[in-house]
Amino acid sequence: MQSIVERLHAQYAHALDDDRLEDWPDFFTEAGKYRIATAENEARGLPLPVLSCDSRAMMRDRIQSLRHANVYEPQRYRHMISAVMVEKLDDKHARSTANFLVIRIMQNGDTSVFASGRYLDRILLAPEPRYEERVVVCDSRRFDTLLAIPL
Amino acid sequence: MQSIVERLHAQYAHALDDDRLEDWPDFFTEAGKYRIATAENEARGLPLPVLSCDSRAMMRDRIQSLRHANVYEPQRYRHMISAVMVEKLDDKHARSTANFLVIRIMQNGDTSVFASGRYLDRILLAPEPRYEERVVVCDSRRFDTLLAIPL
Amino acid sequence: MQSIVERLHAQYAHALDDDRLEDWPDFFTEAGKYRIATAENEARGLPLPVLSCDSRAMMRDRIQSLRHANVYEPQRYRHMISAVMVEKLDDKHARSTANFLVIRIMQNGDTSVFASGRYLDRILLAPEPRYEERVVVCDSRRFDTLLAIPL
Repeated sequence: MQSIVERLHAQYAHALDDDRLEDWPDFFTEAGKYRIATAENEARGLPLPVLSCDSRAMMRDRIQSLRHANVYEPQRYRHMISAVMVEKLDDKHARSTANFLVIRIMQNGDTSVFASGRYLDRILLAPEPRYEERVVVCDSRRFDTLLAIPL
Repeated sequence: MQSIVERLHAQYAHALDDDRLEDWPDFFTEAGKYRIATAENEARGLPLPVLSCDSRAMMRDRIQSLRHANVYEPQRYRHMISAVMVEKLDDKHARSTANFLVIRIMQNGDTSVFASGRYLDRILLAPEPRYEERVVVCDSRRFDTLLAIPL
Repeated sequence: MQSIVERLHAQYAHALDDDRLEDWPDFFTEAGKYRIATAENEARGLPLPVLSCDSRAMMRDRIQSLRHANVYEPQRYRHMISAVMVEKLDDKHARSTANFLVIRIMQNGDTSVFASGRYLDRILLAPEPRYEERVVVCDSRRFDTLLAIPL
């Protein structure tokens, strides 16, 4: 189960880092939920997420507008995932907590730590592993273009 | 054995990143040893560690003074662990070498690489996996508030 | 197979981080290939690599000149590896894609993100796991002393 979950996380990371954003919704179940929140808000129980999608359809819309808007300076991301904890919920579901670090590389070569935090996931294991819910809890409340791309 | 050790490292990382510092001593055996050293000192065989605890009791004291002092600007940490090498010593013990990277997030959102280095561990595997010894060898000899929190 | 490959990656990382550069060629087969490229060049299909070795012998030469030149400010590296994807090719070979992040620590303690990118590997699994080919695709096209040391 650990290896199935780690593989899912790895595939997700590579899809984003390869700019295959159109593949992103397929990592979720049809009614899958995705939201970016800040650690501060989560700790206070404030429900306001920075970005929120309640279905694959919403995710597809999101990516499409991203592609059309495309006002951002070309940039590249590199996801590092670590300390993956997996807990079985039932025969078909698992919960996962993992640390992440996202490096951003601008077109001029400038490289910096873009975001860090935790992935809190509920995963459907079979037939194909997919996220039922992925909450991205960012350590920093500072967001510049963070709203733009999925993390 | 690899997965037991990786899970222990992950739990340790999450405890620190969640500011559950009171749980920190419980990752060690009762007579567990913990010290922070620099790569420079280790290479020269100089015994002077930056921070050293020789038992769980000392670790508890350390955390208590940390909580009371609390003179530090609120900050958050994120641990990344990688390249975990595990070697069996006997039926109940293992040695582990792992790379770490600690990101620090200040309250204003500033994010930076705080520390990097190696964890050199001697681990008691059963009944519960715990560190008998954890040596944190930091790459940089520069320490500002590094003395404050466990790594 | 996943654990064999991850162990190889980990050993490779520790060899470089411990400055055991003389061990570096031994991670490859006798006719092993190694090159550093940029994501930009790879995407455009441009063959020009930043650094290229076509055999272990070339790698040994490379390390020897590095040791003799030694004009660089003393520095330390720390490799983080994540999101390791392994795919079986046949009974004795596997392909691996992994994300990497290299932290550089200067002698004065300055720590920064030095390089990020992907390792694209073809691995001979037995009798000893070794790289038949390792392509290091860096995210940034900026290279200062990157040419100096293997990544």
